[in-house]
Amino acid sequence: MNGCESCKYLENKSFLVYETKYWKIDLSEKQRYLGRCYVTLKRHCGDLAELKKEELLDFLEVVRNLESALKKAFGAVMFNWTCLMNNAYQAKIPQPHVHWHFKPRYDKKVKFAGLVFEDLEFGHHYSREEIKVSDIIQKKIIEKIKNNL
Amino acid sequence: MNGCESCKYLENKSFLVYETKYWKIDLSEKQRYLGRCYVTLKRHCGDLAELKKEELLDFLEVVRNLESALKKAFGAVMFNWTCLMNNAYQAKIPQPHVHWHFKPRYDKKVKFAGLVFEDLEFGHHYSREEIKVSDIIQKKIIEKIKNNL
Repeated sequence: MNGCESCKYLENKSFLVYETKYWKIDLSEKQRYLGRCYVTLKRHCGDLAELKKEELLDFLEVVRNLESALKKAFGAVMFNWTCLMNNAYQAKIPQPHVHWHFKPRYDKKVKFAGLVFEDLEFGHHYSREEIKVSDIIQKKIIEKIKNNL
Repeated sequence: MNGCESCKYLENKSFLVYETKYWKIDLSEKQRYLGRCYVTLKRHCGDLAELKKEELLDFLEVVRNLESALKKAFGAVMFNWTCLMNNAYQAKIPQPHVHWHFKPRYDKKVKFAGLVFEDLEFGHHYSREEIKVSDIIQKKIIEKIKNNL
């Protein structure tokens, strides 16, 4: 074990949406932006600059498939993609691990699973205030995305 | 003219750091994170999903060269990469254009050109409060990055 949180997370398939040869896609419990996912590299690598060409080309496929699925599933209009890895640098010996934050953005309210999701910041930077959903809601969102992949 | 702000920006070489076949790299006037740049696709394309493979592989080269230059120039420790394009969606007819926000992050104060740059949020999400510098300072930062490319 290398102590890396993302490596540990790779073992957990509880909220898996799907995976490719190089990337694992999980639905976040944070659903202020409906369909928010993490896209995690399936090997320990701490810097975008160290990605292999085949990993980046596979990521492009993930972008295409995930964006298309979220448009179909919930009518997402556009998407914010960020690769940050800041938190890893709070540790004395940082163990960054490449992962992307995927945030679908919406110009309309979306009703789903008895809830109303509203992107109050559409057209603006995402808010960092989180809205978490229950495991059951998370599973329903995953199911809906999977059906549109 | 298609009315796209980024297309217009491609013509402006005032704060150019360098360019590749597919990407133009400019230094932002916002320098809370010393060396902050925009990496703009040199053709009008509104969605990451529509990038061509050769454009993405060229982007990987930009990531490698820019990160390496910023480490050498100012001792940047790690980097935040984001592709957002939110503002474009404030228009009635959105004209998004793929560009990346590149934010170098620092665990130490950096003195440069008579100023002190301090990353107060290191290990945490970037702040959205901006610190703008003058044209002269911008040019000096560009020069320093160029010398380390």
